[in-house]
Amino acid sequence: MGREAALVTSGEATVGLIGGTGPEGRGLALRLAQAGVPVRIGSRRAERAAEAAADVRAAAPGAEVSGDVNLAVVEASEIVIVVVPFEGHGATLMDLREAIGRKILIDAVVPLAFVDGVPGIEEVEEGSATEQAQALLPEARVVGAFHNLSAKKLQAIDTPIQGDVLITGDDAEAKAAVMALAGRMSELRAIDAGPLAMSRFVEDLTALILGINRRYKTQAAVRMVGIES
Amino acid sequence: MGREAALVTSGEATVGLIGGTGPEGRGLALRLAQAGVPVRIGSRRAERAAEAAADVRAAAPGAEVSGDVNLAVVEASEIVIVVVPFEGHGATLMDLREAIGRKILIDAVVPLAFVDGVPGIEEVEEGSATEQAQALLPEARVVGAFHNLSAKKLQAIDTPIQGDVLITGDDAEAKAAVMALAGRMSELRAIDAGPLAMSRFVEDLTALILGINRRYKTQAAVRMVGIES
Repeated sequence: MGREAALVTSGEATVGLIGGTGPEGRGLALRLAQAGVPVRIGSRRAERAAEAAADVRAAAPGAEVSGDVNLAVVEASEIVIVVVPFEGHGATLMDLREAIGRKILIDAVVPLAFVDGVPGIEEVEEGSATEQAQALLPEARVVGAFHNLSAKKLQAIDTPIQGDVLITGDDAEAKAAVMALAGRMSELRAIDAGPLAMSRFVEDLTALILGINRRYKTQAAVRMVGIES
Repeated sequence: MGREAALVTSGEATVGLIGGTGPEGRGLALRLAQAGVPVRIGSRRAERAAEAAADVRAAAPGAEVSGDVNLAVVEASEIVIVVVPFEGHGATLMDLREAIGRKILIDAVVPLAFVDGVPGIEEVEEGSATEQAQALLPEARVVGAFHNLSAKKLQAIDTPIQGDVLITGDDAEAKAAVMALAGRMSELRAIDAGPLAMSRFVEDLTALILGINRRYKTQAAVRMVGIES
């Protein structure tokens, strides 16, 4: 096991959420905290982050969660997850470039675009949001993950969340750490979805799921059938 | 229930496979025949189609399966499924344009492209193979389906095949008929994946699954978790 994966498994790695005060960020913070992972919630405004952290602590008593501005959160974390809306993705990452450095950066951003109410994906020059992150931050160890989980289900922490977390990345050790992290979260299964070049397909899947959610009035997740685990 | 869905449910609708002699076509023919659906396997060469039909009859005794050239198969079928490789997709459909007419055309073609061994998707001007079919045959009632099933698992008819068939289409009645058809096949579940504009995401999913198959040495299928059925 690589060093980071060992830190994740032992609960020593702090995970920071860039733009973590929205529903997806709060949901991930809750599920990570529930799994015993120390979490820092980042925001452009420290007071918003502190509020979100207090909400998470109230929902998951005993959780080690605090909030601060994004920069301070990145600096205090071994692993960072970016969960901002796609329109702020590039600029947010560029602002935090130095602080992110060579850290593991999990990109959970989906370049969603709705056309006539039909969920679609915005064309991204680099192929996907995750590959855009890697292009902007060539030093960072970028891994794509957590694109396909319902924010609502993530936040309903009394119910285990089921589904696969499809994980892309070119850095084997970073990917192993993220797989260990996802594997700690209640009933989720981490699946190696391939190199960064496959990220587009994982991001695309979110559009498909959102459409299905609307038609079936549900919050669906995806599961690969036929993989032993 | 629409007229075609009723024909499917009663087993009266004949399903023709355009380019049905390959592994995916044979697998679909087997599973359809197993479900009691009359099947015609099409090929550019009548003898190849007849051979494939004989193989299917041998594997599924009692099955109503015959083979012929694509044109004769389309003319004799209420519903047609195109399963040719993407490079022959447009030309094959244009050749059969008149015979297809206003029939239900199920497009199961994935514009796969491998780059350095990594499965990817070729850029299609119309957005997806399924939308390309609709653009070429504006009269046809095009539905996308059966993109994500393993040919190997389809052909292993002693084992039920599990997974979701994600179905796209703009014609509600045609889509209902295809959902009824997929629902007849052993343990598969039909999921309404939205309008034709969502087809790209379903086709993309095949690249993701192929990559996962290689890494996990399996033949995976996809299932949406959280939909009651």
